[in-house]
Amino acid sequence: MPDDRVSLIVFSGDMDKAMAAFTIASGAAKPETAVTMFFTFWGISLLRRETGGGRLFLERMFKRMMPVGPEQVGLSKMNFGGIGATLMRRLMRQKDSATLPQLMNLAMERHVEFIACEASMQIMGIKPEELIEYEHLRVGGVDAFLESAKKSAVNLFV
Amino acid sequence: MPDDRVSLIVFSGDMDKAMAAFTIASGAAKPETAVTMFFTFWGISLLRRETGGGRLFLERMFKRMMPVGPEQVGLSKMNFGGIGATLMRRLMRQKDSATLPQLMNLAMERHVEFIACEASMQIMGIKPEELIEYEHLRVGGVDAFLESAKKSAVNLFV
Amino acid sequence: MPDDRVSLIVFSGDMDKAMAAFTIASGAAKPETAVTMFFTFWGISLLRRETGGGRLFLERMFKRMMPVGPEQVGLSKMNFGGIGATLMRRLMRQKDSATLPQLMNLAMERHVEFIACEASMQIMGIKPEELIEYEHLRVGGVDAFLESAKKSAVNLFV
Repeated sequence: MPDDRVSLIVFSGDMDKAMAAFTIASGAAKPETAVTMFFTFWGISLLRRETGGGRLFLERMFKRMMPVGPEQVGLSKMNFGGIGATLMRRLMRQKDSATLPQLMNLAMERHVEFIACEASMQIMGIKPEELIEYEHLRVGGVDAFLESAKKSAVNLFV
Repeated sequence: MPDDRVSLIVFSGDMDKAMAAFTIASGAAKPETAVTMFFTFWGISLLRRETGGGRLFLERMFKRMMPVGPEQVGLSKMNFGGIGATLMRRLMRQKDSATLPQLMNLAMERHVEFIACEASMQIMGIKPEELIEYEHLRVGGVDAFLESAKKSAVNLFV
Repeated sequence: MPDDRVSLIVFSGDMDKAMAAFTIASGAAKPETAVTMFFTFWGISLLRRETGGGRLFLERMFKRMMPVGPEQVGLSKMNFGGIGATLMRRLMRQKDSATLPQLMNLAMERHVEFIACEASMQIMGIKPEELIEYEHLRVGGVDAFLESAKKSAVNLFV
């Protein structure tokens, strides 16, 4: 039976969608409400802290093209090769709005659980040691997501 | 505990995704089922009725580039600078399918609640008076969405 | 009241998003958990097995441009006119990861229910006989989705 839990799949690695996801996660995280974020596919970018090598050429190529961390991700629209994202970041600073890294930190301060999708990491050749260090981060599969989702009152695919 | 409620986050301002969102909202809205749509980021475009000025240059720039209302929004795919959206609109007229403005009106006739995301409006410098007039539209934050979502049987991020 | 059911709206026809959707669907499908996938708009591409003609010019044009089946769909990002999707398919083969057609087959082996959106098919002029043959596939409207969604513990819009 669902309780007060919230589970989010972060499929997109885009700045704007990630901002929505972390805003919802931080807003929902309360002592009585556990929040789980399951990062899959492009969403893994947000958890990367460095770009290691790769055994296969295609692996290295995809890894080099994928952003590393929330400072590098682009907008889902009007990105124009990153210019849109840069201008949006500048606009948010001018307005003193919370930026994506700040929203992500807030979610971590509130102990939101992060699960990095095992299958996505395997396809892209990203190793656990290439991800950020965070006490509540673990690598898991679709079963880990489903277990959390079935207990959640709110589930979203972002 | 969830009841029969339906809550949708309309993040995308794309014509095709918005059509899906309003179709679900209108289909679900019944005397015994309340429906809430939370418009955030690009989704705010759908609620705009005019483009006011802005204090900051970047604000004016983003506001000028964002569509104003459902007649101006593009497709999420095959848009080709708006040509795809124009052709899709023409195709729907030829077929007597409901267009996006018609679907949006239907949702309003059925008293679907619209919440415009406060944080998005603040970042983009969009003022409440630049939005459409509709009795069941209000400006609110992530808490307003979560309150509705936790009571909903169906929650979707579009 | 929600039970253990899972309902997914497959709006996107992108390879990466569809992989996520079929992975969740197959992972969730158990004797005690029924799973429904509602394919709408670009998601219909995944169910197409041939491209028939069309009465209207615009209809024929959209149908010719939309992919036919899971082998033809592209990535939501870094697609570069299909090159990204081809390289991703090659990378997955090199790694022995399940490909999209395999994931889709797995969902069908586990009797996941497929509903093809009636309104989308009507707009695009796709006829039921142009879809794949599968015992648990039927054409239906938003009501069919909502009926399933209201009984589901997990609902996602992909």
